[in-house]
Amino acid sequence: MEPRPLDALNRARDKKVIVDCKNGRQYVGTLRAFDIHINAVLDDTEERVDGEVRRKLGTVFIRGDTILLITPA
Amino acid sequence: MEPRPLDALNRARDKKVIVDCKNGRQYVGTLRAFDIHINAVLDDTEERVDGEVRRKLGTVFIRGDTILLITPA
Amino acid sequence: MEPRPLDALNRARDKKVIVDCKNGRQYVGTLRAFDIHINAVLDDTEERVDGEVRRKLGTVFIRGDTILLITPA
Amino acid sequence: MEPRPLDALNRARDKKVIVDCKNGRQYVGTLRAFDIHINAVLDDTEERVDGEVRRKLGTVFIRGDTILLITPA
Amino acid sequence: MEPRPLDALNRARDKKVIVDCKNGRQYVGTLRAFDIHINAVLDDTEERVDGEVRRKLGTVFIRGDTILLITPA
Amino acid sequence: MEPRPLDALNRARDKKVIVDCKNGRQYVGTLRAFDIHINAVLDDTEERVDGEVRRKLGTVFIRGDTILLITPA
Amino acid sequence: MEPRPLDALNRARDKKVIVDCKNGRQYVGTLRAFDIHINAVLDDTEERVDGEVRRKLGTVFIRGDTILLITPA
Repeated sequence: MEPRPLDALNRARDKKVIVDCKNGRQYVGTLRAFDIHINAVLDDTEERVDGEVRRKLGTVFIRGDTILLITPA
Repeated sequence: MEPRPLDALNRARDKKVIVDCKNGRQYVGTLRAFDIHINAVLDDTEERVDGEVRRKLGTVFIRGDTILLITPA
Repeated sequence: MEPRPLDALNRARDKKVIVDCKNGRQYVGTLRAFDIHINAVLDDTEERVDGEVRRKLGTVFIRGDTILLITPA
Repeated sequence: MEPRPLDALNRARDKKVIVDCKNGRQYVGTLRAFDIHINAVLDDTEERVDGEVRRKLGTVFIRGDTILLITPA
Repeated sequence: MEPRPLDALNRARDKKVIVDCKNGRQYVGTLRAFDIHINAVLDDTEERVDGEVRRKLGTVFIRGDTILLITPA
Repeated sequence: MEPRPLDALNRARDKKVIVDCKNGRQYVGTLRAFDIHINAVLDDTEERVDGEVRRKLGTVFIRGDTILLITPA
Repeated sequence: MEPRPLDALNRARDKKVIVDCKNGRQYVGTLRAFDIHINAVLDDTEERVDGEVRRKLGTVFIRGDTILLITPA
């Protein structure tokens, strides 16, 4: 069976990831959940702008359509 | 069963949340309702721009496609 | 049963509301109708830009995808 | 039965309306047809930019996703 | 039966039309085909920018979501 | 039977076409495949910016939603 | 049978590709998976901005709606 993109997200579950958003913000935290719209939930999240931590946010629900990419941290 | 992103929103129901929108506005209030489009209703809502309270709005219906993220306040 | 976002709009029906749009315009009028796309119809509507009344418009059909939020006036 | 937004457009059929578009253009003409996407057809249409008539266009098909609002002229 | 917006496009078939696009470009040619997404095919097409002919293009397939309006030339 | 827009693309299959994209880039190559989203595959592709060849790309998959128009080269 | 655009992506599977995104970023890596939304997963990925490597990212999930084109590297 061909691999599917969401399999890669599944392997990243409960691991630390970087989420890059369309507005240039970056969220770094533990990937707890996602769905087919790529809505995602992170725990222990840091918001970074230009590489600098701007906010510590705990649990964050990120709407999928704002996400550019997700990669292991 | 795998956790789903909307479960995280469900746990935030009736609690104080921050909603960050694509235009830079922020809404802080009690999350009363949401749906699969991430349309959301807040009570006792403050609108903040650049961290400053700009309006006190009571109940607010926010259209889901303008939302970037939702996080506990 | 969990409350749904459109319930909040339903409670605002026939009441005066503020509709904030993505282009910064604001419409203040009596909410007469809405649908799942958040297309909305207001009566006795004032269009405001930067808080100033710019046009008096009577009945207005607003396309849902231009709407940021709806809140009681 | 609850009123629906398209009922308001239906009442405006064959009457003169103003259509405001997302790019700031305005079309003033007789509303002949519309559909659920808010695609609209006007007759005897004037295109206005900043309140000035720029073109006289006769029949115009306007794609719904460019429309902000429709209001009686 | 109520008229529908695509009826107006159907009457323009095989006639010369102006297609205004969201990026300010204009295509003037003979409307040969369209579909529910408003994807359109023109023959003997001129591309105009600021009213000046920029390219002569023959047959052009225009993706519907870039179209603002279609009107007889 | 009425002609449909995708018929025009079908006639362009295996011929040289110009694909204009929303960001101003232009791709010139042999149209090998397309689908209802107007996702398109070109072979022997040149990328042009402001009329200048910027890259020679061989086979290119172009996501449909970035495409403005397709026309024979 | 007519070729389809996703066939071209399938032939690129497990090969090195360039993914151009709407924000000007470029991802170069081994294409491991994609779906009908053109969500894509690359391995051994380099992020390039203006032709310069900016980040080495390993596995990356790229949301399809940010992608302009995919081409063999």
